[in-house]
Amino acid sequence: MAKPKQKTAKPAAAKKASKTHAQKAHALKIPVPARDKLDPATQAYFAKCDEKIGFVPNVLLSYSFDAKKLRGFTDMYNELMLGESGLSKLEREMIAVAVSSINHCFYCLTAHGAAVRQLSGDPKLGEQMVMNYRVADLTPKMRAALDFAAKLTERPDKIVESDRETLRKAGWSDKDIWDIASTASFFNMSNRMAAAIEMNPNDEYHGAFR
Amino acid sequence: MAKPKQKTAKPAAAKKASKTHAQKAHALKIPVPARDKLDPATQAYFAKCDEKIGFVPNVLLSYSFDAKKLRGFTDMYNELMLGESGLSKLEREMIAVAVSSINHCFYCLTAHGAAVRQLSGDPKLGEQMVMNYRVADLTPKMRAALDFAAKLTERPDKIVESDRETLRKAGWSDKDIWDIASTASFFNMSNRMAAAIEMNPNDEYHGAFR
Amino acid sequence: MAKPKQKTAKPAAAKKASKTHAQKAHALKIPVPARDKLDPATQAYFAKCDEKIGFVPNVLLSYSFDAKKLRGFTDMYNELMLGESGLSKLEREMIAVAVSSINHCFYCLTAHGAAVRQLSGDPKLGEQMVMNYRVADLTPKMRAALDFAAKLTERPDKIVESDRETLRKAGWSDKDIWDIASTASFFNMSNRMAAAIEMNPNDEYHGAFR
Amino acid sequence: MAKPKQKTAKPAAAKKASKTHAQKAHALKIPVPARDKLDPATQAYFAKCDEKIGFVPNVLLSYSFDAKKLRGFTDMYNELMLGESGLSKLEREMIAVAVSSINHCFYCLTAHGAAVRQLSGDPKLGEQMVMNYRVADLTPKMRAALDFAAKLTERPDKIVESDRETLRKAGWSDKDIWDIASTASFFNMSNRMAAAIEMNPNDEYHGAFR
Amino acid sequence: MAKPKQKTAKPAAAKKASKTHAQKAHALKIPVPARDKLDPATQAYFAKCDEKIGFVPNVLLSYSFDAKKLRGFTDMYNELMLGESGLSKLEREMIAVAVSSINHCFYCLTAHGAAVRQLSGDPKLGEQMVMNYRVADLTPKMRAALDFAAKLTERPDKIVESDRETLRKAGWSDKDIWDIASTASFFNMSNRMAAAIEMNPNDEYHGAFR
Amino acid sequence: MAKPKQKTAKPAAAKKASKTHAQKAHALKIPVPARDKLDPATQAYFAKCDEKIGFVPNVLLSYSFDAKKLRGFTDMYNELMLGESGLSKLEREMIAVAVSSINHCFYCLTAHGAAVRQLSGDPKLGEQMVMNYRVADLTPKMRAALDFAAKLTERPDKIVESDRETLRKAGWSDKDIWDIASTASFFNMSNRMAAAIEMNPNDEYHGAFR
Repeated sequence: MAKPKQKTAKPAAAKKASKTHAQKAHALKIPVPARDKLDPATQAYFAKCDEKIGFVPNVLLSYSFDAKKLRGFTDMYNELMLGESGLSKLEREMIAVAVSSINHCFYCLTAHGAAVRQLSGDPKLGEQMVMNYRVADLTPKMRAALDFAAKLTERPDKIVESDRETLRKAGWSDKDIWDIASTASFFNMSNRMAAAIEMNPNDEYHGAFR
Repeated sequence: MAKPKQKTAKPAAAKKASKTHAQKAHALKIPVPARDKLDPATQAYFAKCDEKIGFVPNVLLSYSFDAKKLRGFTDMYNELMLGESGLSKLEREMIAVAVSSINHCFYCLTAHGAAVRQLSGDPKLGEQMVMNYRVADLTPKMRAALDFAAKLTERPDKIVESDRETLRKAGWSDKDIWDIASTASFFNMSNRMAAAIEMNPNDEYHGAFR
Repeated sequence: MAKPKQKTAKPAAAKKASKTHAQKAHALKIPVPARDKLDPATQAYFAKCDEKIGFVPNVLLSYSFDAKKLRGFTDMYNELMLGESGLSKLEREMIAVAVSSINHCFYCLTAHGAAVRQLSGDPKLGEQMVMNYRVADLTPKMRAALDFAAKLTERPDKIVESDRETLRKAGWSDKDIWDIASTASFFNMSNRMAAAIEMNPNDEYHGAFR
Repeated sequence: MAKPKQKTAKPAAAKKASKTHAQKAHALKIPVPARDKLDPATQAYFAKCDEKIGFVPNVLLSYSFDAKKLRGFTDMYNELMLGESGLSKLEREMIAVAVSSINHCFYCLTAHGAAVRQLSGDPKLGEQMVMNYRVADLTPKMRAALDFAAKLTERPDKIVESDRETLRKAGWSDKDIWDIASTASFFNMSNRMAAAIEMNPNDEYHGAFR
Repeated sequence: MAKPKQKTAKPAAAKKASKTHAQKAHALKIPVPARDKLDPATQAYFAKCDEKIGFVPNVLLSYSFDAKKLRGFTDMYNELMLGESGLSKLEREMIAVAVSSINHCFYCLTAHGAAVRQLSGDPKLGEQMVMNYRVADLTPKMRAALDFAAKLTERPDKIVESDRETLRKAGWSDKDIWDIASTASFFNMSNRMAAAIEMNPNDEYHGAFR
Repeated sequence: MAKPKQKTAKPAAAKKASKTHAQKAHALKIPVPARDKLDPATQAYFAKCDEKIGFVPNVLLSYSFDAKKLRGFTDMYNELMLGESGLSKLEREMIAVAVSSINHCFYCLTAHGAAVRQLSGDPKLGEQMVMNYRVADLTPKMRAALDFAAKLTERPDKIVESDRETLRKAGWSDKDIWDIASTASFFNMSNRMAAAIEMNPNDEYHGAFR
């Protein structure tokens, strides 16, 4: 725990040159069309990403080898995370990260950890969701949502009516329960997809909103 | 193991009247528009279900309270399970059921177990996928796919390059790996969504293709 | 989820010819005497099976290489599942299947899943026990029995007095608790024996009582 | 780790008077006939226990409320642990204890830990089986048997042909595999029965063969 | 369960000659100075062990290749297990053994199981801690401490304020909670160190205080 | 994933005022002497912390209610993490964080994640250790060390000689194995201590070395 100093050179023993690897969105060799050969809708979407956040998230690049798969993913994602809901966008991102923490998903923890830091303006909260949501100073209502998401992630076979009842007592409506459930479920898909293909998060996320 | 006889009356001790329950697609109280008030696209889709399989699967009824969510789900599902792929539809259904077996998902085991029976014409194969895919008499290539799907379901954090390499050696292309991964991942989402809202499979599945 | 059609031929990609395999009761090479060379008691027992259910269950064939082992197994089994008890035969079969579901035992889920369908006259109940007993519409008393059986299966080291007290409060006597416990325990043995030798259930079970 | 001294009085803080409890064979209130009212076969069996080992094991007292259940248990047990086998009695006891260690079964670890000490003449070996069989200095053949028993205990669903093949390569015949499997399976039953009813081992075991 | 007889010779089938192995404190080849070359403080400490308990515990021999590491370990250990505390020495040893039971640590179960037998004068209590603390006849206060230690061992990520509150309600002060926590935590370290290097407990422990 | 903007106010729904909480080093109410009443050695140590890193780490404040416990902890820690070793300081920190990731320890992930960022000059590497070390681009030698640490954390009972042999083949000496083992073991202690008392990492770590 020595005092902060200048960045040192990367230690040879612990790291191999990672330059070529960093270029790739994931570990599978699936040819992706050059960006100007993508279908117009995808090109427009990516241009919007560049404009809004400065880069195209690797999850989108990963799906871009097939326009239908990309649209299927983004339609569901956008409705889920950005659509109308009784949960705020931050609350949905917190669920995303708490689930991804259990599954140890590098991609989702990185990208959505950054989103929690951004939306909350509270870098510590982002770290708590990444590391262990139970240490965070949350309302009982939000804690109940995360506890439900955690059980749904670890032991979906054991979810019973009393688990839903606990959410209702904490103040969530049945429509909210749908949204909590579908957010937690979606990231149980995304975490596994990212693990299966070793999806690499864009480096830009790491330092953002710290 | 007494000799098959006529169906007996349901034993009072073990079951409560389940009539009202059977009506519901799931356990949440979310108002769904009457069928003739649904948006035209959904009405058309449901009419097609009725025509093709004789009923509307409860998973579609569950999502039908919100046309965008329904379309997000069906677009992704149809591309995944019915679209172009190096995996046959049966192989994709086998992955779906093997994953759902680990997660003990009543809805998906029922609906997709029926699909395996239908597509294979082999009711025993359907039961094996539901109960434990490891007992089935499979090609090494298909077994490798199911072993990957099982590990991805149980310990996504432990998937490493050698797991993908095992799939390649078994004869799968990188594009096939994407499809295996996305099928297994999708059902890790669907299993949890079904568990979270206690989605009820249509009774029609139980006796079908036996 | 295409409309039911005629049984298709078995797909070459997913299955190898399983003819020779289906002949065998299990995966170990242990010589079994020809049926007319078995001891008279065993021959009589098998004749009764043929008469009552139309075949000799493979679990009995598996044990028949040694008359003492066969009798040890059947004596305990028959007393447990067919003897006097505060639990109905159906309730005992439900416990058997719920335990076998956790252990993913192909043999026991097949044979005893059929027994639940037969005794209840309710094919759906059989599927629920096979897939996840928690979704079934049960009395609180029966659910308590299955919850106890599940905990005893998953974490026997964690059973404490309060678990027994929960059963008593649900309406079970101490003698009933013995029977719940011994049924759940017996199938934890049988599930493992079937897994260890890859015991094959008779094909007749799959379509029975649907 | 102070030097051995005289036994001290039991510390009040850590223990309650255990006198009444020690009398009972288990935690369920199931009336057992007075010993001279038991059926003659049971009386004779218990007399033989008294003669041979100086007491009646509590597992037998536990089952003695019902002569058929007692005989079912002892017939299977005696055939398994004392009958003809390619495994020595010690090897069977070692499997029994290794399985019971995973399940943390107080009764079986106590009674069969004593048996390993007795049959091997090696108190340390008994402790190793109770605590963690992996530290013991065993032949590769015996280690393979215990590894199989451990996997069968922890993840019966994952046993596949290659697990049996490993046993064959270690020198076990298919008939031996049956015996290894049935011993491990039996104690997965007994461990759970003992846990479910909190069966108390006779105090005589604790100091025996040390 | 044959009658106790004379110790038999070690069975050839189950054990290899273990003479050379027994000499070693652990499985790593790390040169240790001859005892008379150790630093004076260590020599004095070992002489005290010889005098008090008749031997030097192998854990101390294991660390003795480096005087600083040895002192670091013993300073922490002695303060923890022998220093001032609201927990008696026996209570701390009980926590040590209950934790070691979950981790199946041969070294710690042997050495600290002996300590529980010695300090309690109750060999059965020692066995219960080794095998499964839940069967022991404990005060609710002590059981709460062991339940906390068990949860902290198995799922440290799930410890929350209500777990501490349970300890307080059982009668433990916050300072006691620190001591319960640090004892359980220390043995989660020691158990793993012993496993990693296969530390061998001194044979003297096995028969002591029986 | 909107474009980075100014920090927003903390959302009322997701967070309660955390001011008072942030003051505390942990959740137990154990009186700590005022800093100028601490023993001189501790005061000197804390002064050095202030000088070197700008604050006193909360783990030290946590132990400071008792000078002997504090010294026991710091002596062991400093020898382990800063002493002579075949492992670089960075490699030891990487093990610390990989272990803490499995145990989801907020304190250690925060403090030692910062140390990995600092020592490596590679913020991404720090995140990878926090989230899932398997995604990092490591030498086979370092990966073997982390795989050993992970197995030792998750299943210490299953460590056998072949695990040590794998480390040797990867290039580690027996003395290195000791250091890998003791680092992984130490953090299995620290992770649990931090969880048990809900130790709060200093806020300074979160933004450091990004």
